[in-house]
Amino acid sequence: MSASDDEPIRPRRPQRRPRRRPRNPNPEARRRLLEAARELIWEDGVPGLRVEKVAERAGLSVGTVYLYFDGKTDLFVQLVMEYTERLSERLREVYASEGPFAQRMLRALDAYLTFVDENRLGFLYFLDVGAIETTVGRLSTWALGRHADDLRPLLEAAMERGELRQQDPELLAQAIVGLLQHMAGWWVESGERYSREEMGRFLATLTGRGLLG
Amino acid sequence: MSASDDEPIRPRRPQRRPRRRPRNPNPEARRRLLEAARELIWEDGVPGLRVEKVAERAGLSVGTVYLYFDGKTDLFVQLVMEYTERLSERLREVYASEGPFAQRMLRALDAYLTFVDENRLGFLYFLDVGAIETTVGRLSTWALGRHADDLRPLLEAAMERGELRQQDPELLAQAIVGLLQHMAGWWVESGERYSREEMGRFLATLTGRGLLG
Repeated sequence: MSASDDEPIRPRRPQRRPRRRPRNPNPEARRRLLEAARELIWEDGVPGLRVEKVAERAGLSVGTVYLYFDGKTDLFVQLVMEYTERLSERLREVYASEGPFAQRMLRALDAYLTFVDENRLGFLYFLDVGAIETTVGRLSTWALGRHADDLRPLLEAAMERGELRQQDPELLAQAIVGLLQHMAGWWVESGERYSREEMGRFLATLTGRGLLG
Repeated sequence: MSASDDEPIRPRRPQRRPRRRPRNPNPEARRRLLEAARELIWEDGVPGLRVEKVAERAGLSVGTVYLYFDGKTDLFVQLVMEYTERLSERLREVYASEGPFAQRMLRALDAYLTFVDENRLGFLYFLDVGAIETTVGRLSTWALGRHADDLRPLLEAAMERGELRQQDPELLAQAIVGLLQHMAGWWVESGERYSREEMGRFLATLTGRGLLG
């Protein structure tokens, strides 16, 4: 499920012209372009994204944008991938921390809500238009699959140690990441009706004590 | 959250010309057009939907389509609303059936998986492009909200009778419908890797015994 450097994940619809690659790739230029795209998406949404504006905001030429990205959809896909990776890093750090399984799950829940809170608008746009077909399937399915893949070894280890009831770890990982993503989306979308603390408490109880238990 | 006859739910983007309304609305014509749109979406997907083809498939004129619908997006919105209502009816019937709460939840789960199984392609398209802005907010949020609204009284009654731990019924209803929708989407999307029986057993245990309990 993970991206390799040889076959980067791209939107499925191929470009008319194959993209020229930068001769000496400049990670800083790529980073500035992605950051400019993120700012513009937060201001105007994904449909309003224009490659010309991304170039202008980053202080680079339109030609440079096309050296690094296939166009506006690709900019969005690469942004989602970068933010998926950032979240994944934070969660894997928590999974690897000390303490019993239940405690690490609560820490992971907290890290997840913090991340969503920090990236509210980006998260909503991801929910709105993340169902893009890419070379690795639906982008939103890929992103959730990444998080499920990270979580699964933790669940398997907890089952082995008897800290968790035996069940299909793949399905359980999907259930947990899917539930949390849905509730986080609902929370952000419904505005301030529930505080972050209320959501955190509800989800912690749900995760710890079960859905209907 | 429910649609009234006075203010029908429509896509947010208004038409350039206000739509003429049929003088003597013919429910049969409307039904044929919706069924034609459903068939075409299952064949070609939502982006490929053309009003001309819908008219042709239904054996009606393009003008008649525009008497009943604002265009292709509206056709899709009305289809989602109709199928949301069909599922809602089946679930409400199960909620109102005899027996303890846990048993009715298992019957509801079964009814839900049957519905998804019957409407696989439509369900996937809904997941892909259901984040349309309408006069009642995001279409997918509205549809899930309908199901959560149906479920909530059942949860409240079960809490009152001590069949269910006291907790916020609105959040719990959202969590259950969100979890089931995610898992159903993942199941349909991943093809035949898990059978309907395996998914049903996993979700029944999850619902009955809790996420990590």
